[in-house]
Amino acid sequence: MEGMLEMRPIGFVKSPYSETREIPKGCGAKHEAEGIIEIQPDLEQGLTDIEGFSHLFIIWAFHKADGCSLLGTPPSDNRPHGVFATRSPRRPNPIGLTVVELLDRDGPRLRVRGVDMLDGTPVLDIKPYLSSIPADRLKRGWLAEAEGRQTK
Amino acid sequence: MEGMLEMRPIGFVKSPYSETREIPKGCGAKHEAEGIIEIQPDLEQGLTDIEGFSHLFIIWAFHKADGCSLLGTPPSDNRPHGVFATRSPRRPNPIGLTVVELLDRDGPRLRVRGVDMLDGTPVLDIKPYLSSIPADRLKRGWLAEAEGRQTK
Repeated sequence: MEGMLEMRPIGFVKSPYSETREIPKGCGAKHEAEGIIEIQPDLEQGLTDIEGFSHLFIIWAFHKADGCSLLGTPPSDNRPHGVFATRSPRRPNPIGLTVVELLDRDGPRLRVRGVDMLDGTPVLDIKPYLSSIPADRLKRGWLAEAEGRQTK
Repeated sequence: MEGMLEMRPIGFVKSPYSETREIPKGCGAKHEAEGIIEIQPDLEQGLTDIEGFSHLFIIWAFHKADGCSLLGTPPSDNRPHGVFATRSPRRPNPIGLTVVELLDRDGPRLRVRGVDMLDGTPVLDIKPYLSSIPADRLKRGWLAEAEGRQTK
């Protein structure tokens, strides 16, 4: 198909989770697990100065995802929502995005807190997390409503 | 190569920028430009309920990027940094990430504020922007230091 793009793993995640069901999900899930982002040795120079950032975006691939579903019911609700309004793995492009806290770096290995990926997950990119939207300007859509229903 | 992943555009960006040099860059750059994220018609159902979110992550492809450079000097500094500590387009996988404000939706078209992509940029994924790191826990690495040097 025209416009197809090829991506290659820049590294892999070492995570305490070997099965999807072990990963905390749904409203109030805390992602405090530590893990390692291990970059391919030939790309290590690309990590220069990354130690100065407290938080990083990790862009990764749902390598175990099975197909795509445009509507799905996430663990945080009992109603279906569009895939682009959720973090479902069953996406047109199986891309995952996680903000992690950078704890320290040992050469090509970044020790991080906040992994929610499976062990062995391919990493596609790393970017510094720079700014945030003030909480009073942020609307959280169906998720805020689902949380409200569940705490009743 | 083993582990290659194929991605396809889920849609395209309509942006006021037709040349890279028109896009505001460097310290203090404001991204207030409005644009349209237009999703392929067969994926429109995936946008269900997206109207409830004020901000979205747009994951896109630097389709005009020319190769990869592990060390580069970004517009916000005069010193080189590793590519994973910058938003340089010359990345191992040419993936871009932008947080935009969702203004309104007309079917498969999302009108957004904050585009920093070229007109015609392929979009790979859309996710709700949910949470943020408190400002007092965020360290901004070389960028904070470069800003400090430039305001002296």
